[in-house]
Order: sequence, then C-alpha cells, then structure tokens
Amino acid sequence: MITFGMDTAGRTVSVALMRDGQLLYESYLDAGLTHSETLMGLVDGAFRATGLTTADVQLWGVCSGPGSFTGLRIGLAAVKGLAFCSGAACAPVSTLEALAHGFVGEGTVVAALDARRGEVYWAAFDLGPEHQRLTPDAAAPVDRLEDFLKNCKKPVFFVGDGAGLCYNKYDSLSGVLPCPPALQRCRASAVCLAAEKMNQNGLCVPPAQLLPSYHRLSQAERERQARIKGESK
Amino acid sequence: MITFGMDTAGRTVSVALMRDGQLLYESYLDAGLTHSETLMGLVDGAFRATGLTTADVQLWGVCSGPGSFTGLRIGLAAVKGLAFCSGAACAPVSTLEALAHGFVGEGTVVAALDARRGEVYWAAFDLGPEHQRLTPDAAAPVDRLEDFLKNCKKPVFFVGDGAGLCYNKYDSLSGVLPCPPALQRCRASAVCLAAEKMNQNGLCVPPAQLLPSYHRLSQAERERQARIKGESK
Repeated sequence: MITFGMDTAGRTVSVALMRDGQLLYESYLDAGLTHSETLMGLVDGAFRATGLTTADVQLWGVCSGPGSFTGLRIGLAAVKGLAFCSGAACAPVSTLEALAHGFVGEGTVVAALDARRGEVYWAAFDLGPEHQRLTPDAAAPVDRLEDFLKNCKKPVFFVGDGAGLCYNKYDSLSGVLPCPPALQRCRASAVCLAAEKMNQNGLCVPPAQLLPSYHRLSQAERERQARIKGESK
Repeated sequence: MITFGMDTAGRTVSVALMRDGQLLYESYLDAGLTHSETLMGLVDGAFRATGLTTADVQLWGVCSGPGSFTGLRIGLAAVKGLAFCSGAACAPVSTLEALAHGFVGEGTVVAALDARRGEVYWAAFDLGPEHQRLTPDAAAPVDRLEDFLKNCKKPVFFVGDGAGLCYNKYDSLSGVLPCPPALQRCRASAVCLAAEKMNQNGLCVPPAQLLPSYHRLSQAERERQARIKGESK
C-alpha cells in the first residue's frame, strides 16, 4: 500500500511517501515562507523523486488539527484536491498524535503546540509500539500540565513547536528529558504511520469529508462572540 | 551557524540544512536508484528551498562509515567538492552515531547496519541528551550481540538497515522493543546533530582530510589477501 503523509499545521511543512511501511521519500521545510508558496513544490518533488503519481496513493494522511487555522486549511484543501480523482481514503490525523508517532523507545511523549497567550494544544502518549494515548487533544494554559507531569511514572519529553515553552517551565521536574529542537517538529513519515493506524481502525473518510479540528474558536469568532455577548447585556 | 548533513552510507540518501540547532530543510529518498544519480539533485533541492548557498555552510557533516563502500565514497567525494571552495570544517560522522542521534527519550539504541554474511556493523548508545556511546563501532556476527543485550539494563531498540536482522533474532529477549521500519533509517538532521557535537569536541577536519572508515576490508581486498596467503604456502 502507498501512503502519502502531509503536515502543514505549524510553520514547518513536511510531505512523505511510504510503501508497505517503508519510507520512500520525505521532505521537510522551515524556510519562513508561507505554505501556500512552498507546499505544492514539495508535493511535486515527492512524486518526481519516487516516480509515483497521485493515482498510486491508496491512503492520504494529513494533519487536521490542532494547529494554525490557515495552515490546516491549506493542507486539508490540498489533500482534498489531490485525492479527489481517485477518491482514495483520507485520514484526518491529530497533529499531536502524528508528532508522537515520530518517536520510539520507552517513556511518555507530550506533544505540545504553541497556542499563544500562554496556552498550548497538548496531548500525552505512552511510547512503545502502540503509542497509547494518555490524554485527549486539548487547549490549556501551560501551567495546567503540572498535575499530569507530576503523576507521570515514566521519563517524559516534549515535542512540537510548544516543546520549548513546556520544557522551560518544567525542566526542573524529575524525569523531564530534553529533546533537541531539530527533532521536535512534525515529520510526514509520522503522519503516514498515524494514518495507517487510523485506516486499520476504520477511521478514514472520503476526501470530501475531510474536516479540520481546531479545538478552539478562531480569534475572529471569539471576538464576535464577545461582541454579541456585550450587545445582549 | 549553518550545518549541512548528508548520509549516503546505505541504500537510502538524506541531506539536511540546520541553522543554530533548528532544522531548516531535510530530504530523504529510498527509490532504488543509485546515489550517483539522485544525491546531487537532493543537494540542489536543499539549497534552492532554503535560499542558502554552499558559501553559507560553516560545518559539513557526512557519514564516513561504516556502510556501503561505494555509497560512502560518493558521499565523502560530494562533500569534499562542496566544501572545497570555502574550506569549511568537515565532520566525518560515524554512521552508527548519526543513527543514534535521531532518537530521544530513555533507553538504549543499538545502531546496526547489514554487513552481509550474517554480520552487522553495530554500536550501542545510551539515549538521553548526550547519546553516550556504550560500545565502539565494530563488525560482528549478529549472534555476538547476545551478551551485550542480556546485560542491557534499559529497554533497547534497533535502528539502521540491520535492525530487522537483529530484532528477528532477539525479539524474545525481555526489554527489546520494536521500531517501525519507517523510523529505522538514517536522517541527515541526525548527521547534523552528531557533526555539531564533533565540532564542539574539536574532531573536525579540512575537506581534503575527509576519509572513510570502512571497518572491514572490501571483498576485493579480502580475496586478494586470501590469494596471496594461498600463493605463499
């Protein structure tokens, strides 16, 4: 089976092609350009380098959130378009679950994305073959992770673009390990792995049903709600 | 500091650019083509995507062995050429050490490359921030790892293209964890991390002094020695 993976949830972009569990190609870019300019070039590069076409892809995995609202929409719209002709199965992968699937070994991985205003989108997973989820995807102040971390029995490390924020806050807790920034970000190979697991569990959808999971209202929506609330008083 | 990393030691190729510890770009290809056809295209892609040039690179890291003799020569010759004009520092990174640097957490990582004839090139590292080396790079029959693994106090997993060979032999030992094939291979980001550590430790050389570490005689040399030995009897 050929699986295509894509992550556009943060300021980095990554695409990958996997065949029967073997990684054929992966690229990753953090060049400060907008995804709208760089993403399709990376997609094109993946197919050129492997000699495959979109028709060969049987499963499309894409980070569906949490993450940057615009980034998520760019990625989901791209995969919808790429998968449209074949109608192949699409896996809307939790960005946090994808991050966790890039790691192996023993311990707990806390995937954290910077949600601004001192908050992170976060979820914890037990490392090991199953990457068992320990907490649901949620938005919370960084302070709020303390209870979970203090009760964590295994060594723990942070990944994602909120990893630095969490590590700086909790590095003095026993069992908290550092992770080099170069390894903290989402790789599309890990999106492929998480997508294949979703596929095995019957959690895929047709391209048209791909939807983002923002986990929080957008700033515009928050402001609108506050305005409506104010008017109704 | 801009660091360039490259791995051509096995049948996969990877290149990466890192700035001050942040990964800017990485690509990885396992397309069954020879490195002589694919490598320079990936190098070109890295510089185009990031807008950097070879003159911007202050440190060149390249896997210098163990690995495929031809693969190593292609990678080392390429880096010698790319670094020649600026004369920037070059780090001849152990392929096994680079493999280990792609992982974080707690446990022991055994990097193993298939050396054919039931042998592996292998070395073990303690995970954690320092990736402390536990054994030297060596070629040995897969059977020979048993003593090390039985005395391993932490959970252990295998990476590298000899990982499957080792896992199939030792998966029944307690503490041996699986690692998905898509995560087993060398990433150039990890070459960058290992290269920066070598640079900090004063282990870099000028481009002209880059040399491979084969860890075993080539087949032609082994056959020649056997012939000479036979003739001298």
